[in-house]
Amino acid sequence: MNKKVSVYRKEHFNAAHRLHNPAWGEEKNYAVFGKCNNPNYHGHNYEMDVKITGEPGADTGYVIDLKFLSELVKENILEKLDHKNLNLDVPEFAHLNPTVENIAIVIYDILRSKIDEKLDLQIRLYETPKNFAEYPAS
Amino acid sequence: MNKKVSVYRKEHFNAAHRLHNPAWGEEKNYAVFGKCNNPNYHGHNYEMDVKITGEPGADTGYVIDLKFLSELVKENILEKLDHKNLNLDVPEFAHLNPTVENIAIVIYDILRSKIDEKLDLQIRLYETPKNFAEYPAS
Amino acid sequence: MNKKVSVYRKEHFNAAHRLHNPAWGEEKNYAVFGKCNNPNYHGHNYEMDVKITGEPGADTGYVIDLKFLSELVKENILEKLDHKNLNLDVPEFAHLNPTVENIAIVIYDILRSKIDEKLDLQIRLYETPKNFAEYPAS
Amino acid sequence: MNKKVSVYRKEHFNAAHRLHNPAWGEEKNYAVFGKCNNPNYHGHNYEMDVKITGEPGADTGYVIDLKFLSELVKENILEKLDHKNLNLDVPEFAHLNPTVENIAIVIYDILRSKIDEKLDLQIRLYETPKNFAEYPAS
Amino acid sequence: MNKKVSVYRKEHFNAAHRLHNPAWGEEKNYAVFGKCNNPNYHGHNYEMDVKITGEPGADTGYVIDLKFLSELVKENILEKLDHKNLNLDVPEFAHLNPTVENIAIVIYDILRSKIDEKLDLQIRLYETPKNFAEYPAS
Amino acid sequence: MNKKVSVYRKEHFNAAHRLHNPAWGEEKNYAVFGKCNNPNYHGHNYEMDVKITGEPGADTGYVIDLKFLSELVKENILEKLDHKNLNLDVPEFAHLNPTVENIAIVIYDILRSKIDEKLDLQIRLYETPKNFAEYPAS
Repeated sequence: MNKKVSVYRKEHFNAAHRLHNPAWGEEKNYAVFGKCNNPNYHGHNYEMDVKITGEPGADTGYVIDLKFLSELVKENILEKLDHKNLNLDVPEFAHLNPTVENIAIVIYDILRSKIDEKLDLQIRLYETPKNFAEYPAS
Repeated sequence: MNKKVSVYRKEHFNAAHRLHNPAWGEEKNYAVFGKCNNPNYHGHNYEMDVKITGEPGADTGYVIDLKFLSELVKENILEKLDHKNLNLDVPEFAHLNPTVENIAIVIYDILRSKIDEKLDLQIRLYETPKNFAEYPAS
Repeated sequence: MNKKVSVYRKEHFNAAHRLHNPAWGEEKNYAVFGKCNNPNYHGHNYEMDVKITGEPGADTGYVIDLKFLSELVKENILEKLDHKNLNLDVPEFAHLNPTVENIAIVIYDILRSKIDEKLDLQIRLYETPKNFAEYPAS
Repeated sequence: MNKKVSVYRKEHFNAAHRLHNPAWGEEKNYAVFGKCNNPNYHGHNYEMDVKITGEPGADTGYVIDLKFLSELVKENILEKLDHKNLNLDVPEFAHLNPTVENIAIVIYDILRSKIDEKLDLQIRLYETPKNFAEYPAS
Repeated sequence: MNKKVSVYRKEHFNAAHRLHNPAWGEEKNYAVFGKCNNPNYHGHNYEMDVKITGEPGADTGYVIDLKFLSELVKENILEKLDHKNLNLDVPEFAHLNPTVENIAIVIYDILRSKIDEKLDLQIRLYETPKNFAEYPAS
Repeated sequence: MNKKVSVYRKEHFNAAHRLHNPAWGEEKNYAVFGKCNNPNYHGHNYEMDVKITGEPGADTGYVIDLKFLSELVKENILEKLDHKNLNLDVPEFAHLNPTVENIAIVIYDILRSKIDEKLDLQIRLYETPKNFAEYPAS
């Protein structure tokens, strides 16, 4: 019998960023991104929920070992993003605006290649407790 | 390529209300709605998550500007509901019981007409941290 | 040896209220209390922390039995305030403005007479997650 | 017109458990389950969201009366699991590993038989604020 | 000039326990401790705030390095209590009832001997989000 | 009669910062501040509780109008710190390390001069949900 369960693991990282489109002048950037365009950067405590969906193993009762998932996130995501300047320190954002939408997509793309294809993956990323994003959309 | 992302904005308002069906007598109203039927009203800190789903713009990285969404909610929802008596001050509830389900539907209907048709909309409304509703159901 | 410990019990109630000083005219009331002066009332999910300080009993390890404390709060405070209109339904606020400060004082005065004099008591009352009060001040 | 709404009720219970597969030796159990395999048990504050989806009744505005749902959960789930040792006190886990996935499935199966078939049901169960599961997967 | 600041570090552990006084019979134990007396144990996600008070160092701006404090708590408290049965696995509770009051005192006594005497120490321990204790009382 | 009450108002801001002592070399800075020394900055969602203690006014029931306090914090603190780089954009940190301790002291010193001397003031500042500071210490 098919009993799909989703499991979630919460992780967090702290980073600086700036929203900016280099194809636009200073004025338009400020008009669109407001205070988030500060050339000296600002920052956030990002909190993320990694959601994995599949059938629990008959011998473990686990969809995925959440300690293993936590280690995978530490090595592949937190090492890359935690205590970093997203615009300056992270190659994926050299030419991509680090909005909460785009950061969620980048995290998904990295983790997708590390997780068994039989398992579904979704990322929810909180930029602040009031603003957050989910990818892929459900 | 199609990359749909959901973004969320959290807002809140405080209101008084009373659950009541005028077609029923006092006794049946009390039997069904209990303390929520208090004729002098009681109240809540309502917290709402507005969820918008679509593709991030190529030049902004935004599904929707969350500052714009927040302003839209302030003008169309908070002005109408915040620090109000839902039964007495809000025309939509003159003949509609202000349960958390119905308040979520009313908020959705108002916002739906203000937001680009290409974007999907969902409302999650917390009446208390323990009781909440989502419309449309997913 | 003297080992004083504080224990806390969290409880909540939902109520409607209106801030108003009957000695003032409508205009001054609105100038001072703003939207909180709505004559039709608004409301809140009040959350309270009841703090009791004393020495744990040698045979129980309890400063006070928190189940007993919870029952005491239910009977003396929640029965009186939950799902009520503070201005209309609660005699203590017939001539006292139900600000978060005054509600905390009223709750303290009621509980103080029910709790062993050897134990210290303090009330923290949240009107919203952003606005709260503590009585007596520490 | 068809207007499906989801409503949620949050409940909690505290329990001890141990992750263990009796078909494996001590060493393999420790390798797979780590500290969660402690033969003397450890425990959690489990928090659960019960989600019910359907159309609000025309005369009540309720998908389901959340007080009724809360009573149903108390009688059928909390009586069974709260302040219990899941492995020793709960027959469902005599031969089933009490992972957060399996506990969510057990809760779902019990409640499913008690709730009107026209209503959809989903359980979200938090083992800790960082580790949680949802069944059925959405 | 003297500028005392308090800093806090939040940590957590999961444990099983049972409230019991061996000097009493079964009946009295159940009358006093209720469901918490279950002989098969139950458990909690304990969350603790470690509060340190002192003057920030002129060259660091730190009262204490919170990474160092976190390591100290991991080695001396979490190694001892996390994923353990407090009654069976922790010598301090062999003859001491593991109430939230007593666990807070035990944690304080261990950490007090590891932290510079010039710094003040206080422990706040949450057994559940609704029940918590603080030692020493302030 | 003297009835002192404390009231609290929660506010938040997002900022980038870097921990660094210019009197030390690169190696010592990294040894002491670790990842927090990243020359490209990282950032946080800072959350602050502003605590004011005094007697409620006889005609208002307010210790202080929390809307007024919120405006005061917006003008004097959030304008200065929100969406800023603390090291580069805020003169107070040109020669002061922006640790959570020092930021709390700077906020206190600014607000102290704006608030009636009869009222006591305390700042609690969260750098993350796990690390926070309070000034003056209580």
